[in-house]
Amino acid sequence: MIQPLFPAPSFSDLRDRVVALPDADAGAIKAARARQDSLTKPPGSLGRLEDLAVFMAGWHGVARPRIAQAQALVFAGNHGICAQGVNPFPQEVTAQMVANFQAGGAAINQLCRASGAELTVIALDLERPTADFSAGPAMREAEVLDAMARGAQAVDPGADVLILGEMGIGNSTVAAALTRALFGGTADEWVGPGAGSDSEGLRLKARVIEAGVARHAAALADPLAVLAAFGGREQAAICGAVLAARAARIPVILDGFICTAAAAVLHALDAGALDHCLVGHASAEPGHRRLLGVLGKKAVLDLGMRLGEGSGAAVALGVLRAALAAHDGMATFAEAGVSGG
Amino acid sequence: MIQPLFPAPSFSDLRDRVVALPDADAGAIKAARARQDSLTKPPGSLGRLEDLAVFMAGWHGVARPRIAQAQALVFAGNHGICAQGVNPFPQEVTAQMVANFQAGGAAINQLCRASGAELTVIALDLERPTADFSAGPAMREAEVLDAMARGAQAVDPGADVLILGEMGIGNSTVAAALTRALFGGTADEWVGPGAGSDSEGLRLKARVIEAGVARHAAALADPLAVLAAFGGREQAAICGAVLAARAARIPVILDGFICTAAAAVLHALDAGALDHCLVGHASAEPGHRRLLGVLGKKAVLDLGMRLGEGSGAAVALGVLRAALAAHDGMATFAEAGVSGG
Repeated sequence: MIQPLFPAPSFSDLRDRVVALPDADAGAIKAARARQDSLTKPPGSLGRLEDLAVFMAGWHGVARPRIAQAQALVFAGNHGICAQGVNPFPQEVTAQMVANFQAGGAAINQLCRASGAELTVIALDLERPTADFSAGPAMREAEVLDAMARGAQAVDPGADVLILGEMGIGNSTVAAALTRALFGGTADEWVGPGAGSDSEGLRLKARVIEAGVARHAAALADPLAVLAAFGGREQAAICGAVLAARAARIPVILDGFICTAAAAVLHALDAGALDHCLVGHASAEPGHRRLLGVLGKKAVLDLGMRLGEGSGAAVALGVLRAALAAHDGMATFAEAGVSGG
Repeated sequence: MIQPLFPAPSFSDLRDRVVALPDADAGAIKAARARQDSLTKPPGSLGRLEDLAVFMAGWHGVARPRIAQAQALVFAGNHGICAQGVNPFPQEVTAQMVANFQAGGAAINQLCRASGAELTVIALDLERPTADFSAGPAMREAEVLDAMARGAQAVDPGADVLILGEMGIGNSTVAAALTRALFGGTADEWVGPGAGSDSEGLRLKARVIEAGVARHAAALADPLAVLAAFGGREQAAICGAVLAARAARIPVILDGFICTAAAAVLHALDAGALDHCLVGHASAEPGHRRLLGVLGKKAVLDLGMRLGEGSGAAVALGVLRAALAAHDGMATFAEAGVSGG
């Protein structure tokens, strides 16, 4: 049996465990591709739907994968960087939106219901924001590992697919700081309007991020140290959930910029760490396209969404279900007596 | 009461009836947009999902539209142009695929089940292909009107949304001929591999289409005469269904290149004729992107699909359902007690 991922006593232990995580099943991938080529349609004519079915086959380790149980996890956190005025909304909105999730009134509630996912919302110490990264590290190593463990523990080992999302006033600044620190460029290439910053707000975000990058220069070579430097708890929890899903070979659908930026910490740690992850949609937040290029991933949907909460990932689950329905339910040329197979 | 669309005794009568068709309800559009702006999310952050909800509101004439009943119609036809060798498959495959649809084994069956649409397949005189358009008109006026009426009659007036698709060996050549004849350019800008033509097959398709355009030069100024010249029955039936849906203010989801090319006959007749139509997906068939530009429409999905049958439209229905779920089910800022509304 492989070492469980969490609790991990240190970043160094965690790094060793990440490289030992399982890969997709090459035999199931081959069998699923062969099945696709036998179905009553010109080969390749279902496009991305075929690729999605084959992807799911690889991680489930079966030629005809199914989704009986879809889990959606939304992690919420608060951020000390809000002291720098990077977000027009008060931090209380994070807790108000968590209450809205719990009451069933948010977009993600409706979208999970529409696509058949069971939603759990995990508020991570909202009353205790992470530290202001422009003044010092957002989190200590132990705090990062604790939030990662909470993310990992939230993953249902019986899920057939996992949707990840986030909520946190100020966290589009954190996401841009993470991607700037991990992948270079300048902060203004990574920042975007988030929940509603104007052009002056964008300039402030970029200035605050560059100040943070200068302060944490010593951390930039180590992705986990970058996560500690910039935060936040929901980002760390997303990393933990992505790793726990990988350990259980559960395919993941990441959401938009903030969720993908969190998971990108793991990509920086190990180029194959996100092989089990789809990106549900291309966000309207401009940094997301740039980030998808860095990760070499093509989003399933491109609907101009920029809400977060896992909303784009939840819509993408419907496409994934359609892909598996075609893969599993179609007749082969031989079964249907159609010429040309 | 407005004149029923069909039976129409002539193209001239039909033209008069098309311009009298109803428009979307401006009051419902305004109310739906106001509702979107009151929901617990930054305004506009659900992107295309918001636009889709508002679109549905306009055609249903209510601020909070719902889909209780989704109808999918797939029309099948055979084409005399196959005598010119434009398709590598035998024409028998059209009937074989219709049997596959009826037995539930095709992609469209699974995709309709996944998105909750009720599928009806209508085979249009498969044993009697239309005439070879390179030698003369594919159909007479009365044949076109008959196929249009059959398409119109298939529309369930109680449907909340209508998905349209097609099947017909050789009909990607017919689609490229229609778009070339209606919108200009050269045939090689409109042709694509369809179900599996190679580069030599593409050149043959383009040659056959240019010959047809030269032969039917006198028809090019009249979109309905273009439809008669190039065919086919499933294209005419799609036009009839689009018109019947408009008369009943039922929103339509068009599928890929062949389906959209058929409906484009109506766009050429009246620039507003497809205002109630979404395009479900951008097909991998290269002419589709060009056609979307002509129509000024952005597809909901872009998944590299190129199957036809209504398959991309059926997947898009899932996105439409998600859009309406968010629109109808979300709490407003006031209801949820969230700051910032």
